[in-house]
Amino acid sequence: MFREVVYLKPEEMPKSYYNVLADLPFKLDPPLDPATGEPMKPEKLLAIFPEPLLEQEMSDERFIPIPEPVLREYAVYRPTPLVRARFLEEYLGTQTRIYYKYEGVSPTGSHKTNTALAQAYYNKISGTKTLVTETGAGQWGSALSYAGAKFGLEVRIFMVKVSFYQKPFRKLLMNIFDGNVVPSPSSLTRFGQKFDGEHPGTLGIAISEAIETVLKQNDAKYALGSVLNHVLLHQTVIGLELKEQLKKLKIIPDMVVACHGGGSNFGGTILPFIPDVLNGKDIKIIAVEPESCPSLTKGEYRYDFGDTAGLTPMMKMYTLGKDFVPPAIHAGGLRYHGAAPIVSKLLHEKLISAVAVSQDEVFQAGKLFARVEGIVPAPESAHAVAYVIKEAKKNEKKTIVFTLSGHGYFDLSAYINA
Amino acid sequence: MFREVVYLKPEEMPKSYYNVLADLPFKLDPPLDPATGEPMKPEKLLAIFPEPLLEQEMSDERFIPIPEPVLREYAVYRPTPLVRARFLEEYLGTQTRIYYKYEGVSPTGSHKTNTALAQAYYNKISGTKTLVTETGAGQWGSALSYAGAKFGLEVRIFMVKVSFYQKPFRKLLMNIFDGNVVPSPSSLTRFGQKFDGEHPGTLGIAISEAIETVLKQNDAKYALGSVLNHVLLHQTVIGLELKEQLKKLKIIPDMVVACHGGGSNFGGTILPFIPDVLNGKDIKIIAVEPESCPSLTKGEYRYDFGDTAGLTPMMKMYTLGKDFVPPAIHAGGLRYHGAAPIVSKLLHEKLISAVAVSQDEVFQAGKLFARVEGIVPAPESAHAVAYVIKEAKKNEKKTIVFTLSGHGYFDLSAYINA
Repeated sequence: MFREVVYLKPEEMPKSYYNVLADLPFKLDPPLDPATGEPMKPEKLLAIFPEPLLEQEMSDERFIPIPEPVLREYAVYRPTPLVRARFLEEYLGTQTRIYYKYEGVSPTGSHKTNTALAQAYYNKISGTKTLVTETGAGQWGSALSYAGAKFGLEVRIFMVKVSFYQKPFRKLLMNIFDGNVVPSPSSLTRFGQKFDGEHPGTLGIAISEAIETVLKQNDAKYALGSVLNHVLLHQTVIGLELKEQLKKLKIIPDMVVACHGGGSNFGGTILPFIPDVLNGKDIKIIAVEPESCPSLTKGEYRYDFGDTAGLTPMMKMYTLGKDFVPPAIHAGGLRYHGAAPIVSKLLHEKLISAVAVSQDEVFQAGKLFARVEGIVPAPESAHAVAYVIKEAKKNEKKTIVFTLSGHGYFDLSAYINA
Repeated sequence: MFREVVYLKPEEMPKSYYNVLADLPFKLDPPLDPATGEPMKPEKLLAIFPEPLLEQEMSDERFIPIPEPVLREYAVYRPTPLVRARFLEEYLGTQTRIYYKYEGVSPTGSHKTNTALAQAYYNKISGTKTLVTETGAGQWGSALSYAGAKFGLEVRIFMVKVSFYQKPFRKLLMNIFDGNVVPSPSSLTRFGQKFDGEHPGTLGIAISEAIETVLKQNDAKYALGSVLNHVLLHQTVIGLELKEQLKKLKIIPDMVVACHGGGSNFGGTILPFIPDVLNGKDIKIIAVEPESCPSLTKGEYRYDFGDTAGLTPMMKMYTLGKDFVPPAIHAGGLRYHGAAPIVSKLLHEKLISAVAVSQDEVFQAGKLFARVEGIVPAPESAHAVAYVIKEAKKNEKKTIVFTLSGHGYFDLSAYINA
């Protein structure tokens, strides 16, 4: 029979997150306080994050247990399948074996629920009533809305204005889970009021608006869907499952590929492979980003703010500058000026590499994948597909594994000209 | 661990379709020629259907082998999972066990690909170049577009006008697979030209337009997504897998439930259980339809046309009359005036029963399901969910199995007021 798919049993789901910081032979540069330029005092961050998440942010424990209520919610859609892309291989006529880990089976269609559920849980037990966040394409906003509905938290979302109007179905999905969405820049914050009504918005602006909102309300906390250590930590369920599935197939991949925006899907996929790389295994790890927002391939490695207003701590990362306004490409999840500090450090230390692909090849690849493999990839995920196709066309005897971080059923308009 | 899901192995996929006509203790009334009122001569139908499908339409073989190329394409997404709705059970606090067979994992998000792939294959080997069809909500049109792309056929779709404008994303999905979609009534057919530009369209009118188009072009054939015997036949892969999965769980269900529009999802789910019912097993089989289009619960059992222009053979079925214009409810797939002759006969012989649910309870149920089970049901499928919830609230010790025929990610606007 033609299909090759590896399902894990529910009881094979990872019981702990994997913290790569425990295994790295170097330390991350600390976040800096924007007011003083000194390393950030954790107490100051308690205004925007609950204590358990801050602890995870700075932990050097190798494994951090996943709380039972979060495991229970993961069980709604996890473990996710690992599928051999046989139809794609055949179409390309390649000797290369291609596998994809499919996160689109999640309730909101992307990997984002992996951290949304964890963050909602830790906030709930810390007394938070309202979670405030920003969203670009809407994947994070819908994931957090879902998680809020699960754990009984109000969720407020600043959605980048251009996406708010281009993606009405994402907004509807957030509304099904009672998420409260406003287009950003908005008139609800002092920072938002600085922009005129025609501004299309950016993730950086939306983050500033969310943080300003949290600082005004006592029982509100901020939730970020990418970049930070604890977010990548939660996403390691992807890579941990993937390694388990590859073990069942008795495969050591030659290449592990994932798309990169802020780093949550990429980090979640690849961090569990870092010990193998450190141990000398020949596994190439590749981040794929858009040519039009090339933080990793064209950015500078330096301290920068996470948002546009300069409210966040400064982080050492690859960045295009906090005021960079990316073009209105369709992969809204990849329109961030910076990159996760962990990913940035791994790249700087040459443990991983990064490539950029053009929007045109991305949508051609996505459309091909839809036709042969039967899944329309999210525009973000289609970046990984595009790169994998290029690699597979070299027709080398090797095995590539990539994460298909979500489906594109809410983003079909992106495919209009493909 | 909390999740209970039964995956079949690829090699456990059914190798044959099940033809219930071989087991029924009565015969179906024959389709009648609209010109003569006499039983239809198969030769006349060759103008619109290829020979292998006509043979299946009239076959009394119990098992009809699934051709290898179709099995191969099924393997892109089949076997589909059977999931215990534990979160729903818990939310309802019921002793009733609820399982759902999930067809939304298909490439276009519903069960429709099961017959689309088979029809495209049989047309391809019969020399057809163009497949013409109609679609309401767009599930069938996108499934046939996908199948056409797979087997190299041009696909033309008359889409009920109100849906064409309400569901732009369905149209985009068809376009990804190169489906050629026009709103119906259109100016492309003589029948379509009879209606003024403001007419919202109906499935009956769209079928007439599709058939008129086929009769004008030699290498074009017509494809229907529901109602006919061969369509239900192809869909029995759902019920056959389901029975295999229940066998693994050692469960004999007390109740098998599916939503009913033309009968393809319902028939595909329940026909394999008919031999058990005939053998005296106490399994209640229930079709769920909308109160606003109540073919089975309020229709007459008599001969009627399948379309509005009266181009199709007359079939003995439960019907609201070929000129019935259903209200613009959101479950476009359930807005058909008639019902499959097989389903109608089973209902008339009291081997199954039918119930109707209101649009309001449907969307409340769908929203609840999304929040607890993590899948937004298609509006059609939410009809089954609504009925199952009512049954489960009786808190009886029993097991209900239903088919969740598709996801609602293309139909989120239906949930706006839920």
